[in-house]
Amino acid sequence: MSDAIHQGEPRLIEVRKNVLKQNDIVARELRNQFRGRGMFVVSLVSSPGTGKTTFLERTLTLLQPQFQVAALVGDLATENDAARLARSGAPVKQITTGTLCHLEAAMVQKALEGSGWGSIDFLFIENVGNLVCPSSYDLGENLRIVLLSVTEGEDKPLKYPTIFNSADIAVLTKMDLADAVEFNEDAAMANIQAVRPGMQVFKTSAKTGFGMDGFLHFLAQQRSLQPGLAEVRKP
Amino acid sequence: MSDAIHQGEPRLIEVRKNVLKQNDIVARELRNQFRGRGMFVVSLVSSPGTGKTTFLERTLTLLQPQFQVAALVGDLATENDAARLARSGAPVKQITTGTLCHLEAAMVQKALEGSGWGSIDFLFIENVGNLVCPSSYDLGENLRIVLLSVTEGEDKPLKYPTIFNSADIAVLTKMDLADAVEFNEDAAMANIQAVRPGMQVFKTSAKTGFGMDGFLHFLAQQRSLQPGLAEVRKP
Repeated sequence: MSDAIHQGEPRLIEVRKNVLKQNDIVARELRNQFRGRGMFVVSLVSSPGTGKTTFLERTLTLLQPQFQVAALVGDLATENDAARLARSGAPVKQITTGTLCHLEAAMVQKALEGSGWGSIDFLFIENVGNLVCPSSYDLGENLRIVLLSVTEGEDKPLKYPTIFNSADIAVLTKMDLADAVEFNEDAAMANIQAVRPGMQVFKTSAKTGFGMDGFLHFLAQQRSLQPGLAEVRKP
Repeated sequence: MSDAIHQGEPRLIEVRKNVLKQNDIVARELRNQFRGRGMFVVSLVSSPGTGKTTFLERTLTLLQPQFQVAALVGDLATENDAARLARSGAPVKQITTGTLCHLEAAMVQKALEGSGWGSIDFLFIENVGNLVCPSSYDLGENLRIVLLSVTEGEDKPLKYPTIFNSADIAVLTKMDLADAVEFNEDAAMANIQAVRPGMQVFKTSAKTGFGMDGFLHFLAQQRSLQPGLAEVRKP
């Protein structure tokens, strides 16, 4: 590397640390706000194309008979995902980040302030599709889910360990395509456990509905375990 | 957004601009070096899981009877991709970036310096799997290819316009799965043209070999059009 690049790095790291510290302060405010409003907040991170939006649309649709749900969705550009998620009937808001490859707590805060949403049992935050940038940004969520599709290669956990370490559970998506792409489930599971021993993994297909029941049961259980969030508003 | 975040941003942008400027200086040196050594340099960018490595392994294998080829491959962690690419018989070197979501020109320069490689007709640089970060970093390449797999959604060009704008051509991968995932080719093509009018697109499957001939013919042609690179070393 040239000296010039070397000289530049420490300053960049210092400034970035400062931004992260500010994000943590806002995330703490958000967490208090979520608790105060009785919201259980779930964020989704993955590579672009893993199927976050399809998975979330199905989740919103299936939860709605029992819970008040809403979603925020981040992308660099377009409101496509908000339009797709809105088909579930849930209130949805798009956050466009311009050139930023992740959501920050302040963007979530601003989007919620302007939403006019009433009581919410489950708020979902779909992050920008990226296996690197979102890992460092706390959004005040209760549960962070990393999604991995059967089409994208079993070694992704080994190649992107930080995002798997920053998440609470993993969801395998597009299981309906497992045979077509010769998905090696044992290898994928072993790689997840190698970077995050004990991590709970749900195998799903939002297209066929496979595995969604178990996942939704887990979500409801996690919500009920949160102090002060046991009561569900819809009958 | 909080004032704190607002205050932080201009300084971050300023420092980042400085890093990018330094990168451009190194990229210019690299470009001169590539020309001096008679190398045609092709970089590949895409989302994680698009199939860059499989596509590149096939490309290296098919080019070798006629050309001297070599590859550099970037990942945050693991040497998996270098091991996979080495099966082609071509010289390959892994660059691990730690937490960085892209390659920089200085990393390429350093990897090449230590490679001990002789004459090379085609050098391939497989970037870190990311649709955001690599777009701003010039690596001195002659041709930048953005890959998009049929499994990851037809609207990716609209959502990540910058990476499509920074690339010279696009390659659709995993065409063998197009039917299984109900890929809408017309929509994908229209979306690419919407963000990058006139962009040339190759439809391929590295698994079946579909479309590889046309792509390889294009590569050889592009190389021969480069001043001073017409002569091919292997018979």
